[in-house]
Amino acid sequence: MAFWKGLFNNSSNAIAPSSTSSKEEVLLKKGETQPETKILFSTTRSIDLYELEELCDAVGWSRRPLRKVRKAMQHSFLVVSMWEEKGASRRLIGFARATSDHAFNATIWDVVVHPRSQGKGLGKALINYLIKCLRQEDISNITLFADAEVVQFYNRLGFVPDPEGIKGMFWYPD
Amino acid sequence: MAFWKGLFNNSSNAIAPSSTSSKEEVLLKKGETQPETKILFSTTRSIDLYELEELCDAVGWSRRPLRKVRKAMQHSFLVVSMWEEKGASRRLIGFARATSDHAFNATIWDVVVHPRSQGKGLGKALINYLIKCLRQEDISNITLFADAEVVQFYNRLGFVPDPEGIKGMFWYPD
Ligand SMILES: CC(C)(COP(=O)(O)OP(=O)(O)OC[C@H]1O[C@@H](n2cnc3c(N)ncnc32)[C@H](O)[C@@H]1OP(=O)(O)O)[C@@H](O)C(=O)NCCC(=O)NCCS
Ligand SMILES: CC(C)(COP(=O)(O)OP(=O)(O)OC[C@H]1O[C@@H](n2cnc3c(N)ncnc32)[C@H](O)[C@@H]1OP(=O)(O)O)[C@@H](O)C(=O)NCCC(=O)NCCS
Repeated sequence: MAFWKGLFNNSSNAIAPSSTSSKEEVLLKKGETQPETKILFSTTRSIDLYELEELCDAVGWSRRPLRKVRKAMQHSFLVVSMWEEKGASRRLIGFARATSDHAFNATIWDVVVHPRSQGKGLGKALINYLIKCLRQEDISNITLFADAEVVQFYNRLGFVPDPEGIKGMFWYPD
Repeated sequence: MAFWKGLFNNSSNAIAPSSTSSKEEVLLKKGETQPETKILFSTTRSIDLYELEELCDAVGWSRRPLRKVRKAMQHSFLVVSMWEEKGASRRLIGFARATSDHAFNATIWDVVVHPRSQGKGLGKALINYLIKCLRQEDISNITLFADAEVVQFYNRLGFVPDPEGIKGMFWYPD
């Protein structure tokens, strides 16, 4: 499956999803002879919470109450899902969401790509899709808190750590 | 006016606002003989956008379109204002807001105390009030992006920079 990867390596333009509708985009089509495999991005598709939980389980995240996950999704400014479609079957393979004040700032949370789909440029495509959506909504300040091991991943996507000495901080109860 | 400061220096309990209603709190009363001066905290009081602009001007922030400021406030999870009341007059002396997914995470933005009121423990009281409100809403992850010169201010309030190597990152267009 180094196939996808080749498509993404050259430039950031190469990963721009081709628009099919304002809210849903097909990134890639693989092969013409076999059953076609598409990668789809969406901001509107409904997401089965159990399927999302499975995806998060797969990368080893600790479980969270589905009631709270649902609430968080309802109150996110943007929820982006990534799907692999082969013929009639469809699988959730990626997810990300952002909170926002709808005017100036957005903050990205819960970025995940299924282990089977990692390392193929799909995480990059997912974040670029999310950025594109946020820019369309006129959000200028796109932020996130990156775990140490993914700082480099976000850096390649144009995210700068601690610009001008700005520090990400977390409150811990005494 | 080192008066207020004395009240705040000892412990974090000393700055806990005394509850008067669920949405509005009086922090302090100054003097019994002169016209009483109160510091009020509120999550519900309506804020005049021009008065807020004046407050932000006073700390040298660049102006933002009021239309967008209004939108950002409407879509913030929490907007906290701090007021100085002397007799019948009332002045906006502090402001902060937080975006949130209403479930897990909140991010604090636009923290400001009027220069005339700085250095008296009121910024600390404002942030503690905001934290208290967020905790009441069962938000466990309280975050912010601190300018280099205020990292120490937030650190004293219990905010930790880069915990476990987590990095605050900002996206910059190419
Ligand atoms: C982090 C994650 C989203 C990356 O998705 P992915 O699909 O594997 O990433 P991509 O294949 O699109 O990688 C894009 C580029 O980033 C690089 N990259 C990917 N993961 C990386 C990492 N952990 N560290 C450094 N670089 C990384 C790739 O090598 C690639 O580089 P290239 O453009 O030079 O080829 C995915 O690994 C994941 O879901 N991890 C588990 C959950 C997680 O940690 N989420 C982030 C929490 S803040
Ligand atoms: C940052 C700001 C909100 C602090 O408010 P304040 O009312 O002056 O702060 P307080 O008096 O409550 O200070 C609380 C403690 O932090 C310390 N402190 C305050 N400002 C500080 C700073 N810039 N650097 C280091 N310590 C600071 C105080 O000395 C005090 O310490 P103590 O508890 O040991 O006495 C205020 O200075 C301000 O509005 N600045 C301009 C706007 C700004 O920079 N906002 C933050 C953007 S991220």
